[in-house]
Amino acid sequence: MAESVYSNYPPELSPAQQKFLVTYVKDWAIQNGLAVRPSSAIIPNGADTNGVLATNAPVTLFPSPFPRSCFEEATALQEIYNELYANITCDEKWLGQVVEELIEVDDFVSNLWKVHLDVQKEGYVQNLSLGLFRSDYMAHVLPTGATALKQVEFNTISSSFGGLSARVRQLHTELLSSPPGPSVNYPPHPLLQSEVPPENPAVETLSAGLAAAHTAYGVSKSRPALPLCVLFVVQEAERNVFDQHALSRQLQTVHNIPVFRVSSVDILDQTSIPSSNSARPLLYQPPHSPDSTFEVTTVYLRAYYSPDEYKSNRDWEARTHLERSAAIKCPTVLNQLSGCKKVQQVLAEPAGPDHLSNFLKGVDKALVERVRDTFAPQYDLSSGSQGRTLALNPETAQNHVLKPQREGGGNNIYKSDIPDFLRSMPESDWRGWVLMELINPAPNAQNVALRNDGEVLRGNVISELGVYGTILWDSTGKVFHNEQGGYLLRTKGKEVNEGGVAAGFSSLDSALLF
Amino acid sequence: MAESVYSNYPPELSPAQQKFLVTYVKDWAIQNGLAVRPSSAIIPNGADTNGVLATNAPVTLFPSPFPRSCFEEATALQEIYNELYANITCDEKWLGQVVEELIEVDDFVSNLWKVHLDVQKEGYVQNLSLGLFRSDYMAHVLPTGATALKQVEFNTISSSFGGLSARVRQLHTELLSSPPGPSVNYPPHPLLQSEVPPENPAVETLSAGLAAAHTAYGVSKSRPALPLCVLFVVQEAERNVFDQHALSRQLQTVHNIPVFRVSSVDILDQTSIPSSNSARPLLYQPPHSPDSTFEVTTVYLRAYYSPDEYKSNRDWEARTHLERSAAIKCPTVLNQLSGCKKVQQVLAEPAGPDHLSNFLKGVDKALVERVRDTFAPQYDLSSGSQGRTLALNPETAQNHVLKPQREGGGNNIYKSDIPDFLRSMPESDWRGWVLMELINPAPNAQNVALRNDGEVLRGNVISELGVYGTILWDSTGKVFHNEQGGYLLRTKGKEVNEGGVAAGFSSLDSALLF
Repeated sequence: MAESVYSNYPPELSPAQQKFLVTYVKDWAIQNGLAVRPSSAIIPNGADTNGVLATNAPVTLFPSPFPRSCFEEATALQEIYNELYANITCDEKWLGQVVEELIEVDDFVSNLWKVHLDVQKEGYVQNLSLGLFRSDYMAHVLPTGATALKQVEFNTISSSFGGLSARVRQLHTELLSSPPGPSVNYPPHPLLQSEVPPENPAVETLSAGLAAAHTAYGVSKSRPALPLCVLFVVQEAERNVFDQHALSRQLQTVHNIPVFRVSSVDILDQTSIPSSNSARPLLYQPPHSPDSTFEVTTVYLRAYYSPDEYKSNRDWEARTHLERSAAIKCPTVLNQLSGCKKVQQVLAEPAGPDHLSNFLKGVDKALVERVRDTFAPQYDLSSGSQGRTLALNPETAQNHVLKPQREGGGNNIYKSDIPDFLRSMPESDWRGWVLMELINPAPNAQNVALRNDGEVLRGNVISELGVYGTILWDSTGKVFHNEQGGYLLRTKGKEVNEGGVAAGFSSLDSALLF
Repeated sequence: MAESVYSNYPPELSPAQQKFLVTYVKDWAIQNGLAVRPSSAIIPNGADTNGVLATNAPVTLFPSPFPRSCFEEATALQEIYNELYANITCDEKWLGQVVEELIEVDDFVSNLWKVHLDVQKEGYVQNLSLGLFRSDYMAHVLPTGATALKQVEFNTISSSFGGLSARVRQLHTELLSSPPGPSVNYPPHPLLQSEVPPENPAVETLSAGLAAAHTAYGVSKSRPALPLCVLFVVQEAERNVFDQHALSRQLQTVHNIPVFRVSSVDILDQTSIPSSNSARPLLYQPPHSPDSTFEVTTVYLRAYYSPDEYKSNRDWEARTHLERSAAIKCPTVLNQLSGCKKVQQVLAEPAGPDHLSNFLKGVDKALVERVRDTFAPQYDLSSGSQGRTLALNPETAQNHVLKPQREGGGNNIYKSDIPDFLRSMPESDWRGWVLMELINPAPNAQNVALRNDGEVLRGNVISELGVYGTILWDSTGKVFHNEQGGYLLRTKGKEVNEGGVAAGFSSLDSALLF
């Protein structure tokens, strides 16, 4: 089934058709905030010193076919996944053991853990945590031709593209359904006749999560009481601002919640925790309104997720400052750590203890097994382990990928390259790597991408589905808000090399379910 | 009253406040399609060859104060103005006399008139006309300090900025009213406390006009019947596309009407009138959908308004082709001619016949006088005329401006420069000029503009209010649709030279009524 869907999709475009679609998409993107600030590769040095220019986000011209069963399963499992990662985050002891194995090979994990220990020593003053998660999957083609949902990763910090991907869904839907009557925007094709991509309430879902935390924070902890706000902590040179503005717009206009943006480098200058107040409210003073002070109910991190963002001690100090405050963190340091690859591997290790069932104790067993079915088998490479055997045997290695444990820790190693690669380094470094069974995407999927420099690329692609979920819970595991809603389809150009490394382009997309 | 409102407005901005507002406006503009394609002054040669970049439209950081009485009067008179210009357009004989006086000094008017004569010879096949008008005014400060509404010009073709000015109203309203509670976006100022700019339904109004014409066209005149559409005729290198897209979006999504865009240079290639069909339907074949043919109900011109757009006979041929078709034109050639400065002058000539009352026969006399009150006195310079006397006397010239009759016909001449300027040319050329009493705007209005290159300019300004109206009528003067709604406030930097020539910047703005 899958192969035949992809075999003649998308339809060929004449030069006039491509010109029309590209113009339509370029203009639509700017009209509707499906935009990014351009990189220095597009803007010559010395131009646009005031930073006014924008361009379309990279998008596919066509929506991509995606198996309906996989899409629905991903959606159906998101709330359980939310709960799973909330429960992992609550189990500080278990998480500590996982982290311990990484401390020697991963400075970043080690430093995050130290932030937690420091705050723990002083005592946390906020027992609520907010998660804005995105679980990423591929549709794995089985030898029978059927497809199964397989998880690529689970994001617990700065899960991005909710704002823009909702826009891409709208773009593709308008292309498919306007003008009324038979489509003239796309060349005729059966897949483009009747279906539109499923609705994408990512902005509503993510904002509702932030609003739930804001409300749960309760009244001001300051005397006299201060007005309350949500704080977006962002990177200084962020180019993906319009994705973030989609959420703050929704929070301000629909939920009536004041939202401010602070660059992570300005946290220590613009926020404070009064030493006289043991409740440790996080106070924000807008530099543009020096007479105002707001109390931050919720810190939403769109920064601090990558090691290279911590350039000095001051950055760790700022992160610790936020962590020890009474603001609800999205995410806490512990919740961020729960998203590390090692946790995913321990959960998915076929030969290991059944951590999954332990973390989902009250949940229907069949549902737990459906979660487990989304795991691609993952292994550590400890001495005598199954992972080591599979990695060193050239035949079994053929079916695997070796991933660095560390964020930004280097490239993946594929298939037959794995045994030699491992043997080229000391065994003590092997714990920095995770072996994962390869996910097998549809081999003949194609699409056409419009890059943000306006170049049009057609080629073989791999699509990754991300499903958004939000959860608010306390340190005892009690859940106050748990929702799923909205998705990201990210479609990447596939190089024809044997590794199947995604390269060339990565575009925002939407799904035509089949 | 007026002076005191302007005297301490807008409030001063600290560097942090200005930085905040500029960042807010820059991002908001791109998120919401308040954008333009950048000019070559911003983009270096050879960059952005694919035309993907966009920037904010030039906007004021603050809404500008505008007298409520003037705003309300302009709004109240728009439907009468619609009717006036419909009636003028119906009176081909009267219009012909006005045009006749211009034929020798204005090729453009002369050529437009020829298009009409050619089509008239063959016979018109469409007796409906659509007007999308914008009447532009200034708030004239009287010696008493009170303000009166005075018309600057009346636009009958390509009345632009409805899409973007609705956005500016939304921008300023959000700046004023979010976050909820006392404003932190702007420094404290009494004018910025309680009011927001009046609602701006320009997009709804203009689109409803186009939709009314589309419906009034009736069924397809082709056999077999063809699907119907609205056609936007646009300039090839248009930078103001997002303003236009706001209307086509509304037509497609709210009114469910197919809309296509054609560059004026492609009209003869992409549209046709079958010679076998005496009803002369205008057929459009989208180059991106070669198997489709649409019948055009309504031709909306966002091109063909300026002489420099007619580069060769082929352009006149294309305009004639549209004019002779069965599509409803917005506007017809006659309606375009009714908007020329000479018509405005003849109406406003204090000593002339009362054309205004003639054109508004059925209208309440008091209302006719309110229309007349919006005219600044205007004069021709014919031998023995009052205009000639006023222009040549240095004392009376001091209170006037001399405007070229021809579109794009050169600069205005101000005050004491007028007598010498006139004497420097042969008297036979004087008929190419119109003398107008100066409108006296508030002398101390200020604002801060963000240009589309990101430069921020603060200075003295003049604001012009444009009010949108739409009317659908037939050649007997019967009116089928007549609405007003939406406005443009355009605020220009004022040079301190005695002429008061607007220069430096011209920005989209919104109105705070006082």
